[in-house]
Amino acid sequence: MGLSLNINRRAGQPLYRQIAEQIRTQIRDGRLPVGTRLPPIRTLAADFGVTRPTVESAYDELRADGWVETAVGRGTFVAREAAADEVIQSLGFNLTPTGVLLDMPRIESVATLRSLAYAEPDLNLFPLDDMLGSLNHMRRADAVDILRYAPTQGDAALRIELVNLLRDRGLETVPENIIVTTGATQGLSLVMQALLDRGDHVVVEEPTHICLLNAIKAFGLNPVGVPMDEDGVKIDKLERIFTQYRPRVFYTVPNYQNPTGAVMSQYRREKLLALAKQYGVIIVEDDVYGVLSYDNVVPPALKTLDTEDLVVYVTSASKTLANGMRLGYMVAPEPLHEHILRLKYGTDISTPMLTQRIFLQLIQSGRYKTHLKRVVPLYAERRDAALRALRTHMPAGATWSAPGGGLSIWVTLPDGVDSATVHRNALRQGFAFTPGDAFFVCNKPNAHIRICFGAHNPYVLEEAVRVLAQVVRDEQAAGKTPPYISPQ
Amino acid sequence: MGLSLNINRRAGQPLYRQIAEQIRTQIRDGRLPVGTRLPPIRTLAADFGVTRPTVESAYDELRADGWVETAVGRGTFVAREAAADEVIQSLGFNLTPTGVLLDMPRIESVATLRSLAYAEPDLNLFPLDDMLGSLNHMRRADAVDILRYAPTQGDAALRIELVNLLRDRGLETVPENIIVTTGATQGLSLVMQALLDRGDHVVVEEPTHICLLNAIKAFGLNPVGVPMDEDGVKIDKLERIFTQYRPRVFYTVPNYQNPTGAVMSQYRREKLLALAKQYGVIIVEDDVYGVLSYDNVVPPALKTLDTEDLVVYVTSASKTLANGMRLGYMVAPEPLHEHILRLKYGTDISTPMLTQRIFLQLIQSGRYKTHLKRVVPLYAERRDAALRALRTHMPAGATWSAPGGGLSIWVTLPDGVDSATVHRNALRQGFAFTPGDAFFVCNKPNAHIRICFGAHNPYVLEEAVRVLAQVVRDEQAAGKTPPYISPQ
Repeated sequence: MGLSLNINRRAGQPLYRQIAEQIRTQIRDGRLPVGTRLPPIRTLAADFGVTRPTVESAYDELRADGWVETAVGRGTFVAREAAADEVIQSLGFNLTPTGVLLDMPRIESVATLRSLAYAEPDLNLFPLDDMLGSLNHMRRADAVDILRYAPTQGDAALRIELVNLLRDRGLETVPENIIVTTGATQGLSLVMQALLDRGDHVVVEEPTHICLLNAIKAFGLNPVGVPMDEDGVKIDKLERIFTQYRPRVFYTVPNYQNPTGAVMSQYRREKLLALAKQYGVIIVEDDVYGVLSYDNVVPPALKTLDTEDLVVYVTSASKTLANGMRLGYMVAPEPLHEHILRLKYGTDISTPMLTQRIFLQLIQSGRYKTHLKRVVPLYAERRDAALRALRTHMPAGATWSAPGGGLSIWVTLPDGVDSATVHRNALRQGFAFTPGDAFFVCNKPNAHIRICFGAHNPYVLEEAVRVLAQVVRDEQAAGKTPPYISPQ
Repeated sequence: MGLSLNINRRAGQPLYRQIAEQIRTQIRDGRLPVGTRLPPIRTLAADFGVTRPTVESAYDELRADGWVETAVGRGTFVAREAAADEVIQSLGFNLTPTGVLLDMPRIESVATLRSLAYAEPDLNLFPLDDMLGSLNHMRRADAVDILRYAPTQGDAALRIELVNLLRDRGLETVPENIIVTTGATQGLSLVMQALLDRGDHVVVEEPTHICLLNAIKAFGLNPVGVPMDEDGVKIDKLERIFTQYRPRVFYTVPNYQNPTGAVMSQYRREKLLALAKQYGVIIVEDDVYGVLSYDNVVPPALKTLDTEDLVVYVTSASKTLANGMRLGYMVAPEPLHEHILRLKYGTDISTPMLTQRIFLQLIQSGRYKTHLKRVVPLYAERRDAALRALRTHMPAGATWSAPGGGLSIWVTLPDGVDSATVHRNALRQGFAFTPGDAFFVCNKPNAHIRICFGAHNPYVLEEAVRVLAQVVRDEQAAGKTPPYISPQ
C-alpha cells in the first residue's frame, strides 16, 4: 500500500522528525520492504505541504541511521544491509518472554533474515484464493451478518462445525458447550481472569509457551515451573508443587508441547487427573498442536479422560491455518463456562463475525480438511529434514527432541555453550531461532535453542541448521580457549 | 448458508433432542429466518444417517414449542408467529444490564419485531460493496499480510490514518501514542484491568452505558453512580463521591452521552479535570458518539483540555460503520500506555489484521469520510422524526431529551408508569425499546425508556413512538383505576 504519512503541525515534534519516524516505523513493520523507492524530495514536499529542506532533513536522518540509501540520479531507497544490520545488532539482548516477543516482529521486518523463531504455520500454504473467493461470492444477507455483533459465545453455525473438529480430537460435546475466542490466547487469558487474582500462582510446565508466560506476568500472576522430560511433566515434582502452593490452575500442552515436542504419557495423564481432583486444581489444556501429528499416531486430547470436569480445553486455528486469523475455541466445565462468557462479553463483546464466517466457510466447503491433509505430510518432511541436518551437522554434546508432531524442535547445546550468544551470532549469519531463556520461569541463562521448522522448505532448514551448528562450534572453540590461558 | 447440523451419537442427549436444539439455536440466532423451509424428513434422515422417526420427533418437538409449522403437502417452515410469540413472552423480565444484554440478540432474532433497542448505526448504510471490492482487489502481498499477527499496538499504516480522525476530534497526537483495540469495549476493559483490582470502585455517570455496567460487574468491580443533568455529570455530587470513595477511575461519555444524549458543559469539563487532578483520578473518556453531531456544533473531545495526562481517550468505528467490525482505538498517557500494551498482548496478542486493513482501506480511499457525510444528515433527520413523533403522541407528563448528536433519546415516563411494563407491552405490539432500569447502578424500577433512532427510517420511527405512546396511555389508564376502586 506504499508510504503513508501524517504530519502534525501542532504536535511538539519537528516536522522532519515526524516524517523520519513514520518512515522508520513502516520500514520496521515491513510496510516498506527493502528496495522500496521513497518519493522524490520535491514530490513529498509538495504532497504534504512542507518545505524541501524539511524532507531533506528527514531523509538525511534516515540515511545517517542506515534505514535508507541514496543512489545518485536514481533516488532514495529502503536500504538492504544498513537498516537490517542496525536491527540485527539490537536483537537478542532482553531474553525475558516479553523481550523475546518484542524482538519477533523486528526479526520479521528484516528481509534478509530467515526466521525459524515463531511456532507458526507456513502462510504460503493458506487457502487464500478459497478465502477471497468465498468473501467475493458472499450473499448480501450473509455480508450484512458480518457487520453485526456475533453472539458472545460464537456464531451458532460455526459452533456446530466445531463439534466435528473436536470429535477428531476424541472429544464428544455439543455446540452449546463451545465458546469461540479471539485466538487460543484469549481463551487462556479468560480462564486466568475467571479463576485468579493478582498475585496468585499459576503452575506451568518448564520450559513452556512464551506467550503464556508473558501473559501471566502482564496479569500480575506468579508462574511456578515444574520440570518435564520426554513423557511430559514430572508427576512427583508436580505433586510437591501442588502441596506447597495449593494453586488453582495448572497449564499444560499435553500433545506436542511447545517448545519440547513432548507428548504426555497415558500413565501421567491419569495421575495428573487424579492429582487435580485431590488438590482441587483446574487443568488448562492447550491443544493447538494436537492435529499436527506426523507419525500416524494421533494422541487424543487430555480432556477425553476428564470424567470429573477438571479440564478446560483451549485450541485455535492459529497453527493449522494462520496465527493472524485470531480464531480460537474452547470447552470449559460449568460453572466456569458461564463465568467465562460473562468475562468475554465485558472484554470485547464478541469475536469479529467476519473471521468466524471465514473459518466456517473453509470448514463447510471441505477446504479446511483438505488443507490439513496437505500440510501435515509437508510439515512431517520438514521435521525430518531438520532432524537429518541436526544429525549431520551438530557437534558432539548437543542433543535434541524428535517430536512426533507440532512445529518445533528443542535443542540442548553442548556444555558451556551459551544460548544467548549462539542466538545473537546466528542472527548475524542470517538466521533467527528462539533462545531457550524465555521459556523458563526465571529466565536464567541456559543451553537451549528452539527451532521452528513449519515455515521453511527442507533446503532452508538444512542451511539454517548448518549455520547454527557452525555458530555452536565457533562458540565452543572461543569458550574453550580462555580458561586454559594461565594468568601469568 | 442454510441448516447446519451436527449429530453426536456418543453424547448423552437423545438424537431427536440434539436435532431440535440445534435447529432452535439457529432460528434464534437468525441463521434460519422466518419462512425458511426445513429439509423433508426423509432427506434429513438420509443425510445424517438417522431414522425417520428421529427426525419426526425433532420436528414434533419444534412444532409443539411453536418454532416451526407444517403446511400439508408443502413441508415444514420456520414459524412466523408462534416462535416469535414464545420469544417475546420471555423477554423483559431480567432488567439488570446482563439480563437486558442477553435479551438483545433474541429481540433481533424475531423477524416481526422492530428493534429500537440497540444504539447502533444503520447497517444498510455500510459501504459494503467498497469493502468487498477492496478485499477482492487485494494484492497477494497484502493478502498474506492479513494472515500474520498485527503488531499488538495496531497496524502502523492504520495508526497513521487514525491521527487524522483524532485531529477531527480536536486531538493532536502521533501514531506511536495510539493503540488499536477489538472495539471500544476492549479499550475500556484494558483500562480497568490495568488500574483496578477485584472489589475496587469505578465511578460512572448515572444513567450510563449498559455494556460498561455489565463489564464492571463481570470483572468483580463495584460501580458508584453520580447523577447527571442536561449539562453532564453533576460536579458537586462527583466531588462528594471522590472524597468518599477515593476511586482511581471515573468513566464518562462527555459528548452525546448514552443514554441521555447530554453534552458536558465547558465549565464542568474544566471543573472535572481540576477534581481529577486533585483526587488523583484517571478519567476514561468514551467518545464513540462524538462525530455523530447533527446541529453544526461539534463538541471537541474532553481530552483536548487534558494538560495533565489524566484522560484516557477511547473510541471506535462501531457507531459510525458497524458494531460487528470490532475495531476501536485509544490514546492513553504514559505509563498507562505501556501497561495497556502488555495487557493487550496477554489478552489476545493483537486485533485481527483483516478488520484493521478493511478500516484502513475505507479511510485511505476516502470512503469513510464520504460515508460520514452521508449518514450524519440522515441520522439528524431520524432524530427529528422521533422528536416530532414524541411531541405529537406522548401524553402529558412525559419528557425526553433532545440530543444534538448520538443515537438515542432518553424518555422519562409520566408519574406512576412503570418502564418494565411499558417495555414488555411495547414488545407485544411489535417494538423493542430499552427499559431504563439497566442503565442504573442499582437497577431499581424507574420511569425511563431509551429510544435508539439510528437504524430506522422516519416512518418506522413515527409508528414506533405512536405505539409507545399508546402503551404508556394504556398503562396510565390501568394504573389509575385500581387505587380508586374501593375495597367494599
